[in-house]
Amino acid sequence: MTITITAFERSPDRGRGLARDMRVRWALEEVGEPYDVCLVSFKEMKEPAHLAIQPFGQIPTYEDGDLALFESGAIVFHIAEEHQGLLPDGRNARARALAWMFAALNTVEPPIFDRSLATILERDQPWYAHRLRALEDVIRMRLASLSKHLGDADWLDGPFSAGDLLMVTVLRRLHGSGILEEYPNLAAYVARGEARPAYKRAFEAQLAVAAAASAG
Amino acid sequence: MTITITAFERSPDRGRGLARDMRVRWALEEVGEPYDVCLVSFKEMKEPAHLAIQPFGQIPTYEDGDLALFESGAIVFHIAEEHQGLLPDGRNARARALAWMFAALNTVEPPIFDRSLATILERDQPWYAHRLRALEDVIRMRLASLSKHLGDADWLDGPFSAGDLLMVTVLRRLHGSGILEEYPNLAAYVARGEARPAYKRAFEAQLAVAAAASAG
Repeated sequence: MTITITAFERSPDRGRGLARDMRVRWALEEVGEPYDVCLVSFKEMKEPAHLAIQPFGQIPTYEDGDLALFESGAIVFHIAEEHQGLLPDGRNARARALAWMFAALNTVEPPIFDRSLATILERDQPWYAHRLRALEDVIRMRLASLSKHLGDADWLDGPFSAGDLLMVTVLRRLHGSGILEEYPNLAAYVARGEARPAYKRAFEAQLAVAAAASAG
Repeated sequence: MTITITAFERSPDRGRGLARDMRVRWALEEVGEPYDVCLVSFKEMKEPAHLAIQPFGQIPTYEDGDLALFESGAIVFHIAEEHQGLLPDGRNARARALAWMFAALNTVEPPIFDRSLATILERDQPWYAHRLRALEDVIRMRLASLSKHLGDADWLDGPFSAGDLLMVTVLRRLHGSGILEEYPNLAAYVARGEARPAYKRAFEAQLAVAAAASAG
């Protein structure tokens, strides 16, 4: 039985690897697990068949035999538990890797995601400049903490882990904002993630979907 | 060796149980594990001793022997793994419980937290009404999905789990907004969580800290 994940039929990011299936693709490539992709339209995402697996009508989902999962963080953790290479050995080191996964998605991602959304939805609003500044203040506060923690290490806590995988995907959303470059060690950290062969394979796979969609 | 967690010396919520140590207290009460609490001031949270454990200068942290953890989601998951009662049996059911933990913190919490913050920081801004409406639209979209999924079940996926524990703490932040009451099954769900003896013990413990702080 092959693993099947869902992804956008037409990703709003047009193949820049920002949709959340990218995290799952990358994790599967890191552990060398083949997978099928089921592309869903925005309409299909809100229909009962998809909602039965993803109650919030989002992507990605993950199906493997009788297991159906949602939430990219939980899917990546599941893949990491089932295979070698994405979680360190030892109960304590493993618990810390999960702490970094939650830090990526609950502490670092929200202001970065809100900033992306604001640049699309609030650009013409009278409060846009104020709102952008407020969000970027929070982002810089988080990035300063992260940069200080990382120092000159390659990864957040020992060898590359699922925590780094999620954190890199979260920070990538700042590409083009100029903010990441204010923290050279974080910019290098993201580049290190993007240089991994598994990352590149996952990126190419999602880009191929976007290319087909725009040609179609 | 007793578990030690950190909490605000003076919680901004004045004992309403909204600070994130509440989640960890509740989880420890559910599994019957005693714990010590180290109260930290806002100044101490930004000092090297605390940052060594919590790189973002927040609470709570969790220390047990040679393990030091941060992120309430990861701490609750660790407690759930070490004891009976917060995770179902079976690898698949356990993976789904973690999916609900991530859903609580990464899908449902961000707009609810932003709304709380906006009611404090943006109340006097000319755009406040518009911003509040936009946030509440997102909150209602999430709550409608959650309500539909829950139906007339007691908990999100079988017996009470760490996913319910986090989701209830996230939804509680809507108390006083009137929004939760638009979804009677969710209001009943939150009340069911708050009625658990372990919840009550945790709530009283954090309230005692707030009472002492305001008397001090």
